[in-house]
Amino acid sequence: MAPHISLVTLGVRDVAAATAFYERLGFKRSGASQEAVTFIHAGPVALGLFGRDALENDAKASSLWTGNGGIAVAMNCASETEVDAMMATAKTAGAKILKPAEKTFWGGYSGYFADPDGHAWEVAYNPFWPLAANGQVDLPA
Amino acid sequence: MAPHISLVTLGVRDVAAATAFYERLGFKRSGASQEAVTFIHAGPVALGLFGRDALENDAKASSLWTGNGGIAVAMNCASETEVDAMMATAKTAGAKILKPAEKTFWGGYSGYFADPDGHAWEVAYNPFWPLAANGQVDLPA
Repeated sequence: MAPHISLVTLGVRDVAAATAFYERLGFKRSGASQEAVTFIHAGPVALGLFGRDALENDAKASSLWTGNGGIAVAMNCASETEVDAMMATAKTAGAKILKPAEKTFWGGYSGYFADPDGHAWEVAYNPFWPLAANGQVDLPA
Repeated sequence: MAPHISLVTLGVRDVAAATAFYERLGFKRSGASQEAVTFIHAGPVALGLFGRDALENDAKASSLWTGNGGIAVAMNCASETEVDAMMATAKTAGAKILKPAEKTFWGGYSGYFADPDGHAWEVAYNPFWPLAANGQVDLPA
């Protein structure tokens, strides 16, 4: 599938407090949320709220993590093979590989790269999230 | 319309170089691009590449701009009235208003707020971009 953004994850100090803030804005929390991470319906993409230290650690991004809590955009792929291909393309294109793709504790497969300006991208396969042809993920209600 | 993310804008040192990097990843540039800003088809959302100083200035975000070049997510609304309503909701919800909504040089209307962790959000009305009911913008080819 063509490259795309599926998910934007914000690193936050307090997941519950950040969730309450976004609910005050009118966003709706998805049932896919867990204690450590909130997933929110954000129109065409999903919005994630994740502890900033946990997100930094997930991305192995300590060398470039930022003062504003950090942020990562994610491209969800249709298979582990597609993740590997995208990570290889990114490396060839001049990206810095932050974390080679690997099996994750949540049952998926993901890696992270940084673009030349240090923006963190996750490339992920999540077998539990239906994925449309344009890269849109279908969060549960 | 329900709150959503339409656009992710990355602050970059060199717009042309960053555009070339994302083209190497397989992303396609939109004809909406200009010398100072590149718009890229990124599946369900649009990806913007904008000079980091220009983006910092656009967002009036100097107090919280980040070491990795900065990033802002955008919610495109259907009218100026909707922008005003969303900015008011954000203020009430505890956001910091970075830039009150105002007419922009590019013919639109936009403001910026920061969430409690300092993440910059643009709330914009762009009369030139068709907007779907879920907040997805329809970039030209």
